Amino acid sequence: MAYELHYWPEIQGRGEFVRLALEEAGAPYRDVAREGGGEGGGAGALARRLGRLDPEPFAPPVLVADGLVVAQTANILFFLGPRHGLAPPDEAGRLFVNQLQLTIADAVDEVHDVHHPIASSLYYEDQKEPARAKAERFRGQRMPKYLDYFERVAAQGPWLAGAELSYADLSLFQLVRGLQYAFPVAMADLAPKRPRVLALADGVEKRPRIAAYLASPRRIPFNELGIFRRYPELDGRA
Amino acid sequence: MAYELHYWPEIQGRGEFVRLALEEAGAPYRDVAREGGGEGGGAGALARRLGRLDPEPFAPPVLVADGLVVAQTANILFFLGPRHGLAPPDEAGRLFVNQLQLTIADAVDEVHDVHHPIASSLYYEDQKEPARAKAERFRGQRMPKYLDYFERVAAQGPWLAGAELSYADLSLFQLVRGLQYAFPVAMADLAPKRPRVLALADGVEKRPRIAAYLASPRRIPFNELGIFRRYPELDGRA
Repeated sequence: MAYELHYWPEIQGRGEFVRLALEEAGAPYRDVAREGGGEGGGAGALARRLGRLDPEPFAPPVLVADGLVVAQTANILFFLGPRHGLAPPDEAGRLFVNQLQLTIADAVDEVHDVHHPIASSLYYEDQKEPARAKAERFRGQRMPKYLDYFERVAAQGPWLAGAELSYADLSLFQLVRGLQYAFPVAMADLAPKRPRVLALADGVEKRPRIAAYLASPRRIPFNELGIFRRYPELDGRA
Repeated sequence: MAYELHYWPEIQGRGEFVRLALEEAGAPYRDVAREGGGEGGGAGALARRLGRLDPEPFAPPVLVADGLVVAQTANILFFLGPRHGLAPPDEAGRLFVNQLQLTIADAVDEVHDVHHPIASSLYYEDQKEPARAKAERFRGQRMPKYLDYFERVAAQGPWLAGAELSYADLSLFQLVRGLQYAFPVAMADLAPKRPRVLALADGVEKRPRIAAYLASPRRIPFNELGIFRRYPELDGRA
């Protein structure tokens, strides 16, 4: 039976970490809010569907698998990992990959909050000044701190958890490409000193199923509705 | 063998969610940075110890259990839960409790960012104006949204995951008490309409081991170095 993914239809967002895992696994799935027909796609239909799920999730993404409703991105990946060879077979390895995923999630939260430091419910245009102040510290302090950490983990390579690719590698790819999209100037400063992280992202991008996905209409392009937004006034030297 | 908890010695912080689980479990543990002797306690000694752990964690809290190094709060609790009867025995139940914990973690992140909307590396005094703007939306929009969600989940009760207490209940207790400490005026508005969440927090507080812990010097009081800070200018009607 195909998985059902419930997520906002117009952005990569947090749902993209789940999409990448499903694509690498070659697992059949429906990206429900992007389909037409019946109740239709779009955000309104998504909200109605989420309200009917049991147990009720706080927010998307949500994965439905044979009646099991799983929410929270890292939790969905923890569920999918061992089912599709995207997590180590032993408990210590799974906990480590989960730990990496939660650290990537923290970084992603910070990227989002750079352009929405006051409230997600306000427009970016109404919080541009604090966004600029936050972006400067994010580029100068947080981006290097996260990238340096993953550079050290990647040194055990070839993948973050060692010999085998895990979903944390797919997620790090997404974080790196997102940072390159949103902060091209800062990343031009930072990337050359973190060669392993960049090589790992390149390695993910070249995997046949990921390459096919990225070239397909299933991959929503980066845009200024999502987490990684290219606002030139928030970019600059790291 | 006793667990080793590595966390900042002067605050409850994210480490408190781990302390509550260990205390409810009656599990022997050392709160290493709060001990004197040898290398000594304090933040400097903590940082040196973290740097020697393998695999290296990004940030505390970190739990060391028989040589296994586990970091990220939700990951530590996922590890501890089934070992101490603080998580359901089945996979669906464990995923649901993990999902709840990650949602509580999201709320905790937002509480922190209310007083540090620009950067953790800056003093609160240097970001008071955006903090005030963020606090207003947090009280009016986010606090009710989170509390309403947990009120609906608690309706399945008596505990969040049903018949048995889980670590998510302990964490919700900490979130509720933290919100009451930091935002007494807003919580006086919001709490009466969320009786189940408040009753659940009271139920956790009365458990013998939790009550003994809260009355002991092991419980660090809420203070203005931690996540939940009582800054009257950030409180107000919800």
